Amino acid sequence: MILTVTLNTALDLTYRVPALTPHASHRVTEVRERPGGKGLNVARVLAALGHDVTVTGFAGGDTGRVLRERLAADGPRVTDALAEVAGATRRTLAVADATTGDTTQFNEPGPAITPAEWTAFLDTYDGLVRTPGTHAVALCGSLPPGVPVGAYALLVRAARAARVPVLLDTSGEPLRRGVAARPDIVKPNADELAELTGSHEPGQATRDARRRGAHTVVASLGADGLLAVTPEGTWQARPPAVVRGNPTGAGDSAVAGLLSGLAEGLPWPERLARAVALSAATVAAPVAGEYDARTYEDLLPRVTVTDRAAA
Amino acid sequence: MILTVTLNTALDLTYRVPALTPHASHRVTEVRERPGGKGLNVARVLAALGHDVTVTGFAGGDTGRVLRERLAADGPRVTDALAEVAGATRRTLAVADATTGDTTQFNEPGPAITPAEWTAFLDTYDGLVRTPGTHAVALCGSLPPGVPVGAYALLVRAARAARVPVLLDTSGEPLRRGVAARPDIVKPNADELAELTGSHEPGQATRDARRRGAHTVVASLGADGLLAVTPEGTWQARPPAVVRGNPTGAGDSAVAGLLSGLAEGLPWPERLARAVALSAATVAAPVAGEYDARTYEDLLPRVTVTDRAAA
Repeated sequence: MILTVTLNTALDLTYRVPALTPHASHRVTEVRERPGGKGLNVARVLAALGHDVTVTGFAGGDTGRVLRERLAADGPRVTDALAEVAGATRRTLAVADATTGDTTQFNEPGPAITPAEWTAFLDTYDGLVRTPGTHAVALCGSLPPGVPVGAYALLVRAARAARVPVLLDTSGEPLRRGVAARPDIVKPNADELAELTGSHEPGQATRDARRRGAHTVVASLGADGLLAVTPEGTWQARPPAVVRGNPTGAGDSAVAGLLSGLAEGLPWPERLARAVALSAATVAAPVAGEYDARTYEDLLPRVTVTDRAAA
Repeated sequence: MILTVTLNTALDLTYRVPALTPHASHRVTEVRERPGGKGLNVARVLAALGHDVTVTGFAGGDTGRVLRERLAADGPRVTDALAEVAGATRRTLAVADATTGDTTQFNEPGPAITPAEWTAFLDTYDGLVRTPGTHAVALCGSLPPGVPVGAYALLVRAARAARVPVLLDTSGEPLRRGVAARPDIVKPNADELAELTGSHEPGQATRDARRRGAHTVVASLGADGLLAVTPEGTWQARPPAVVRGNPTGAGDSAVAGLLSGLAEGLPWPERLARAVALSAATVAAPVAGEYDARTYEDLLPRVTVTDRAAA
């Protein structure tokens, strides 16, 4: 089983409108609604790849109730271990303009988590990482109000104490503090990596992120694919061609690729190829945040993985 | 008891954002959520004025469940007689730009009502209008998909057969068909009246709307207040000054003013003064669709009602 943690879960809405005009009234022609937050997106892709996943984090209020009902309908591979809180789970809304193809995003604030809810969650989490058969943990996304900024450092340490490999995918100060707790893998994008290290040169920045504590750094570089600096070597994995589409969720699919490969004991080049193919198949999918299985199968054997240390 | 009918109920969301920028990502700084649809807005104002109200129409899905829970929390004066349907109640979203004060509106489509659900509703409605103590009925707003365009004509006739005064507040073809069924009162705004009659001159248009079947026409003319053409006479009621603010819900407050005055047996000039004061107090209220009680008390004695027949 793979555990994913989403402290700031969301009910993701997508509205399609003929054209977005500020200060006008719009008829919404299509409404989509699904469980969101990075760790839940990772879990959905892992389940599609055939892995059993347990999801934890916080859910509350009417939106939390709907989110959990939708999660239960997603199938038996995903186990709901979300902690109920008094505050309401946030919504995110993506307004998709059918004329331009552009998206306008609105993110509600997350629920305020009380100190007692946070303390209770630490116990829940500790029980989950210590459950026999937990192969890996992914810590994903932003922190809701009330959760201490050093939260991920605590969660990284608890996973390491339980000897479960832990991947961290967040940004800003929570990433900085989390990295110092020595996670097995961090997966920043180029902006997050530059914010962490002060360097816009990926090679230098990934090395610096490792010096700050991460055992392995897998940087997602958009069309340039993934750059992985690991204790076993350095590789760059690239998609065979530039894929056009919506990048929403591409990073979450890459995390699912890395974790599934880790759980299956694949060598790094195969994990990276899988992560790049899943990520590109997510960009190409018609629905934001889902991946197209046929595109994935097609791209997987054509991803190029270069040994950078040997180059 | 006053009965309000809202066939296309909605869960009304309001997002406050610092500034709306198309195709950007926005942090929502404030979220409000409340039961909506014109008949539910009318019911809220009637309850605030001390009247018992029963609300009917359709509700369904997760949004319908939340709407009914919020309605129950609104207090004991509002009785929920909404009919459960399989489709999901729509949301409406108003994005309020804190910089310009402007609002951008997104309206989800309503649920598709099946022929069986519509037929069952007609029985429910007939039972409600025939309940002893039903003093008046208000038929409010748009029709969801699946409800026949002549729906309001049926509902007007059923109310008249039960000898309960019926007010119709809708637009377009549903208004045209409903007027032909001879409702006691229609309350169009200037645009709706012009669309119905082809005339942009309020005096002529209101007389024409009466010829089409309405016993009384109360036209809402924005800053010019209300023009009422009734079997007992013709009056124009004006607020003492132009009120600035958000006009959302001002028409619903006017309907509540007219119905409460009818239920209390007030003469027309007093009903109109109440409707104008409530309407202006709604424009002035900080929250869209609510009225400011102190503004209402202040404006009420200062509304001018002119006898147009005598003029």
